[in-house]
Amino acid sequence: MANITKKVSWSSRADESGAAGEGTPLLNGSEQPRLSRQVRLAWWLTERLTATTPEQSEGGSIFQIGRLSTVDLEEEITSDEVKPELETLFLSHFLDYDNIENQLFLEEERRMSYLGFRCLEISRWVVCGWIGFLTGLIACFIDIAVEELAGFKYQVVKENIEKFTEVGGLSISLLLWAVLNAAIVMVGAIIVAYFEPIAAGSGIPQIKCYLNGIKIPRVVRLKTLVVKVCGVICSVVGGLAVGKEGPMIHSGAVVAAGVSQGRSTSLKKDFKIFEYFRRDTEKRDFVSAGAAAGVSAAFGAPVGGVLFSLEEGASFWNQMLTWRIFFASMISTFTLNFFLSIYHKNTGDLSSPGLINFGRFEGDSVAYNLYEIPLFILMGAIGGLLGALFNILNYWLTIFRIRYVHRPCLQVMEAMLVAAVTATVSFTMIYFSNDCQPLGPEHAEEYPLQLFCADGEYNSMATAFFNTPERSVRSLFHNQAGTYNPLTLGLFTLTYFFLACWTYGLAVSAGVFIPSLLIGAAWGRLFGILLAYITPNSWADPGKYALIGAAAQLGGIVRMTLSLTVIMVEATGNVTYGFPIMLVLMTAKIVGDYIVEGLYDIHIKLQSVPFLHWEAPATSHWLTAREVMSSPVTCLNRIEKVGTIVDTLSNTSTKHNGFPVVVQVLGNEEPAKLCGLILRSQLIVLLKHKVFVELARSRLTHRKLQLKDFRDAYPRFPPIQSIHVSQDERECMMDLTEFMNPTPYTVPQETSLPRVFKLFRALGLRHLVVVDDENRVVGLVTRKDLARYHLGKHGLEELQLAQT
Amino acid sequence: MANITKKVSWSSRADESGAAGEGTPLLNGSEQPRLSRQVRLAWWLTERLTATTPEQSEGGSIFQIGRLSTVDLEEEITSDEVKPELETLFLSHFLDYDNIENQLFLEEERRMSYLGFRCLEISRWVVCGWIGFLTGLIACFIDIAVEELAGFKYQVVKENIEKFTEVGGLSISLLLWAVLNAAIVMVGAIIVAYFEPIAAGSGIPQIKCYLNGIKIPRVVRLKTLVVKVCGVICSVVGGLAVGKEGPMIHSGAVVAAGVSQGRSTSLKKDFKIFEYFRRDTEKRDFVSAGAAAGVSAAFGAPVGGVLFSLEEGASFWNQMLTWRIFFASMISTFTLNFFLSIYHKNTGDLSSPGLINFGRFEGDSVAYNLYEIPLFILMGAIGGLLGALFNILNYWLTIFRIRYVHRPCLQVMEAMLVAAVTATVSFTMIYFSNDCQPLGPEHAEEYPLQLFCADGEYNSMATAFFNTPERSVRSLFHNQAGTYNPLTLGLFTLTYFFLACWTYGLAVSAGVFIPSLLIGAAWGRLFGILLAYITPNSWADPGKYALIGAAAQLGGIVRMTLSLTVIMVEATGNVTYGFPIMLVLMTAKIVGDYIVEGLYDIHIKLQSVPFLHWEAPATSHWLTAREVMSSPVTCLNRIEKVGTIVDTLSNTSTKHNGFPVVVQVLGNEEPAKLCGLILRSQLIVLLKHKVFVELARSRLTHRKLQLKDFRDAYPRFPPIQSIHVSQDERECMMDLTEFMNPTPYTVPQETSLPRVFKLFRALGLRHLVVVDDENRVVGLVTRKDLARYHLGKHGLEELQLAQT
Repeated sequence: MANITKKVSWSSRADESGAAGEGTPLLNGSEQPRLSRQVRLAWWLTERLTATTPEQSEGGSIFQIGRLSTVDLEEEITSDEVKPELETLFLSHFLDYDNIENQLFLEEERRMSYLGFRCLEISRWVVCGWIGFLTGLIACFIDIAVEELAGFKYQVVKENIEKFTEVGGLSISLLLWAVLNAAIVMVGAIIVAYFEPIAAGSGIPQIKCYLNGIKIPRVVRLKTLVVKVCGVICSVVGGLAVGKEGPMIHSGAVVAAGVSQGRSTSLKKDFKIFEYFRRDTEKRDFVSAGAAAGVSAAFGAPVGGVLFSLEEGASFWNQMLTWRIFFASMISTFTLNFFLSIYHKNTGDLSSPGLINFGRFEGDSVAYNLYEIPLFILMGAIGGLLGALFNILNYWLTIFRIRYVHRPCLQVMEAMLVAAVTATVSFTMIYFSNDCQPLGPEHAEEYPLQLFCADGEYNSMATAFFNTPERSVRSLFHNQAGTYNPLTLGLFTLTYFFLACWTYGLAVSAGVFIPSLLIGAAWGRLFGILLAYITPNSWADPGKYALIGAAAQLGGIVRMTLSLTVIMVEATGNVTYGFPIMLVLMTAKIVGDYIVEGLYDIHIKLQSVPFLHWEAPATSHWLTAREVMSSPVTCLNRIEKVGTIVDTLSNTSTKHNGFPVVVQVLGNEEPAKLCGLILRSQLIVLLKHKVFVELARSRLTHRKLQLKDFRDAYPRFPPIQSIHVSQDERECMMDLTEFMNPTPYTVPQETSLPRVFKLFRALGLRHLVVVDDENRVVGLVTRKDLARYHLGKHGLEELQLAQT
Repeated sequence: MANITKKVSWSSRADESGAAGEGTPLLNGSEQPRLSRQVRLAWWLTERLTATTPEQSEGGSIFQIGRLSTVDLEEEITSDEVKPELETLFLSHFLDYDNIENQLFLEEERRMSYLGFRCLEISRWVVCGWIGFLTGLIACFIDIAVEELAGFKYQVVKENIEKFTEVGGLSISLLLWAVLNAAIVMVGAIIVAYFEPIAAGSGIPQIKCYLNGIKIPRVVRLKTLVVKVCGVICSVVGGLAVGKEGPMIHSGAVVAAGVSQGRSTSLKKDFKIFEYFRRDTEKRDFVSAGAAAGVSAAFGAPVGGVLFSLEEGASFWNQMLTWRIFFASMISTFTLNFFLSIYHKNTGDLSSPGLINFGRFEGDSVAYNLYEIPLFILMGAIGGLLGALFNILNYWLTIFRIRYVHRPCLQVMEAMLVAAVTATVSFTMIYFSNDCQPLGPEHAEEYPLQLFCADGEYNSMATAFFNTPERSVRSLFHNQAGTYNPLTLGLFTLTYFFLACWTYGLAVSAGVFIPSLLIGAAWGRLFGILLAYITPNSWADPGKYALIGAAAQLGGIVRMTLSLTVIMVEATGNVTYGFPIMLVLMTAKIVGDYIVEGLYDIHIKLQSVPFLHWEAPATSHWLTAREVMSSPVTCLNRIEKVGTIVDTLSNTSTKHNGFPVVVQVLGNEEPAKLCGLILRSQLIVLLKHKVFVELARSRLTHRKLQLKDFRDAYPRFPPIQSIHVSQDERECMMDLTEFMNPTPYTVPQETSLPRVFKLFRALGLRHLVVVDDENRVVGLVTRKDLARYHLGKHGLEELQLAQT
């Protein structure tokens, strides 16, 4: 046990004989001072939450482990304001990715013919087709809306600037620009902060959590989608340093969750189709398809989309599922492409898929040379370092926001401030820049600002700032050598870096992909230009270095490798740069991971959800199921009194979600044997429909409860408080045989943590029953039991659970 | 039970109380006539095997289920010659992809520090780097050898033809060509047929099996690699209709299996490194990396390689593993690229990775139009049909070969015959073709044959036939419109189709990728040319249609989608055609799957190995673990008599491989409780080291058996017959506690087949213990128990196991 920071003590072998409860790990008080600072902070947060909120255990949806940081906080959080923000953050449910194979389910499956299964399979393809189509349409809508509105805005500002350049008084132009931006962003921030806070940010951490098995409330609702779409339009049009690509992933996921259920709970409309898909397992599969379709639409990268879904979400890889995901991605990019080709008035031209298109990299066949590979690796390392810096800064900012900026009005004000500052900084940069470039016919700058340049020239700084970020990226990739001077690029990188960092985490819908690419493209191009000074060779094409820099920066921030490589390759439309892109992404990841985690992982950690990583921590073979499990376990009898069930469910201190069902041999004092597992949601449906043994006997025509009743209630099962059970009914009995899962997965107490972890992760479990060698229930392992172990600086650390 | 073709009867609920053995499914004799024909054939084969070979049950490595076909055989197989061939085919072991977490293992893991795990992780990366490097080198060697030898051969033949064209007597040239080809192929066939029959073919089915958990003997040995590499050089140089790409996948896998073990058993050289990786789980991970590196080197497609490994092999997707696979792929393509660039005398030019390079598709930005999409779909359908035809013909041919061509000398003769026929047909086609084309400077035909053409012209048919297939593919993709006339292409398609079909399955190392691409490119180009006649539009670029046709044909034969799309895109170096390629691959797969399975699946089926697909058959919810499991189970006591163990292992009629370990309560008649699982291989090591309780007591210095002893014996554990146990020793006792896996996965008897299947597939299990509600062993589910259920024409079918 030497390498566990906090020692875990447990009782002697005696507990193996069934004395459950003794096996719980106990906190050894004297060991507390050895806990590292962040563990203490987490603990502090937990303690506060425990003290202030009534619902707290696994079932109760508030997760208590605050796994905060790898960066030490210098001061304790003492403000009371932290609570409400954390409360929304901490709220999370868990998803059951293990099929509940109870009698009802098996009966239905057995009734179904081979043809029935074929029909189901076809429905799955149809659903995926719809997911792709609708995601593509949404992407198309966002793109056109942004294009039109931003075009209008830039036109107004440009005219104003041009008017005032000569007569003087450009401060009025600045004011106009800043006010316009702030106003647009205000709209976006208000809908997010007041109507649907979950729609803030890119939504990628939330979707990662969903695919991992954690459901953050309202994450896949229709309202979230609407707010997300309007929000992202406002943020991009408002000139913030954000992209419209990240939110597409969230949007796709919401579309998928909606379409696959064949109804909308928000709109109270049930189409009575796809009822078979109304369970977590099926829904997850569609949500991964939706996320993939989102990526596909955003970057025109169907294969990249599939890989994104798999890299970020899936654990069990199923061939048919992958193909369906691929199909959804294809349809999505095709739909977007088709409608955009109509919008751009060249119907049928399908060669520019995706919201962002990096443009064609034309060049000779020798695109890069062996000698450049060390340079690429160097750029990857720089990207890793800058990415880590970005993440650290953003982490601190997020902590600050959690602490002080949690009221909606403050959030809106902050967003407006950022919008105004962005406009001001941009204006100042443009104003003081005297980098004039000739306005050639091949420069397709949409809004060239002449400002103080000579006639026939335009301000080069303005191409970077006075433009949507997507266009700026393209300019950096493709403008000829000499278009930008190094100082412009350096200043731009610096300011945009801090602006983007400040922006991510605001209460607006926005993605971080494009700003990252833009920062990287800027310093990459700078790198290329500087290289051209040193080496007289002709191979230092700045556009190429801009591409490599963009990959390095993005890789350094988000730390994806395989999927990002494919996305970048698909977005550039050319595999020539595939190898260098891989190389920089790998380097950026290795360098960055050495310092701090990826941006999405940081935000997932800040949400304190029990996210299960791919593998158990390396040194966790010390631990066995006995130490890890929660115990004693609240069990139910196969035929149980209604009163007991209601009390168990109502008990807020042990708001469990899964209950082992046991058979008690009458007249026998021995602990009971496991015979099944039943979920809170199932019990609630049973109580709601009053499936009591006595009532069934007394009624002549007894409508048997069907799977449909469970599906109708899915996924918003009512709370136990809303179900009225009379005093008489409390005395009735409930027979759980038909509804419980009769074959839950079990492990013996000696099973090592990695083995338990593997079972959990591979099968997507939520509860795992620990039994002794007589098949008696000893404990229950849940997701949070596994998530609390992690590798810290001092080896394996256990994050303390508040004792409830 | 209505939709199971062969009814399974089992005894009443009584067997639940522990009366194991009663639960075995019994063949209801009267139901026999209802078995479909292929089941009967399979049964017949099984019966024959059962009658003729002594080792036959799960452990004994002969698998008895003959799942032969979806095509009915018209006649019964009556020849006796079928046996020896089938015997080699049927021989297979199974792999343990579930870690054996016994006490020794856990102790080692616990001793290891965090740093130790970091070192292991770094070793894994180092191993992957080596795998990539060596695979790249092998690819490079094959490429250069083929280039040099084929160049020499074509030069000789070309000079000969030129000499005889004018003076007449071209029959001598034909003879020279045919004899040269036959001689070269003979060498390749001899080494394959006599030295290592497993090296025949592309090796992809074998690697699929390996990753699935079935080890076909000698598949990853050094000797196999050597024979494979030499064999493929001979086949390609010998002018067969084969490619050198498929075998790269097998080669990569062998390299991986070798490097990762840090020793070569064949060379009797142990480097004493990477000892931790000497178990099936770790080895599998490296083998997938090797297969990916092979694909990567073959097609210059690192991402495609990763996807190939995942699509064809993996079940549990682990992020770190994927990145390592990706790394190996990158290194592999880089190595190949680098060394080839030296060979081609432009060191450092890294822009043409892969053994095959489809060349750059230059074109305007509007590469294809919306109107062409239905045409692509049509081509996909044609590809699916032609692919299915190819597969059916090849299936029949393989059956024929199994039946009549199983002696090595016959196999060599057949290969020589094919070589000679290929040369003759090619020559005839070239001879009778009068399709002369002007010899422009931009035609980079390596060996333009003038033959009867005018000066400054060359024979167009010869570009297709008188060339390595890789070059022919490139010509078809890139030669200008008008280079080929339709008749030439039509004839070429027809002859090459049958030649390729005849060739696949010969006793030579050869891949089917390139011939498929070539057939497809030929008819695709033909399609494009014919289209140009009908439509006056300029968009019918025949090269583009050749590409689409190639994708359609390859997809129709091998039925991969995601990985093949990426491979094609990476090989063309252009994502513009990504969407149409996806579309045709999907269509080809759907159309083809409707008729017959993919080529690799057919060959896997013909090997009658218990291949586990992704999911249990759709209508299998009827079945539970009770019906599926084998029972009664041979159990061992925790402390067991050596004699019993030796007898159990020597029992050839029940050559089991996994034994549940039980504790018998003394003086209690009840069946014993499960406390672990031990494998045959472990028992053999224990017996070899004479780990007996009595000996341990008597010796003063007792060297404790360590994990190292098991690792040293891995993977070639000696047979039980080779271990001598004296009569005295038979009376000793063996304590299995320390060596058995104390926490095997278990399921209750009521678990449905899909649930069992999922557990098996997700965790890579080999044995799953079925227990009753008191944790007593009732049965054991093995891979073959699951593989025997499949969806046939009449719903769920159970393939009969011969009763041994």
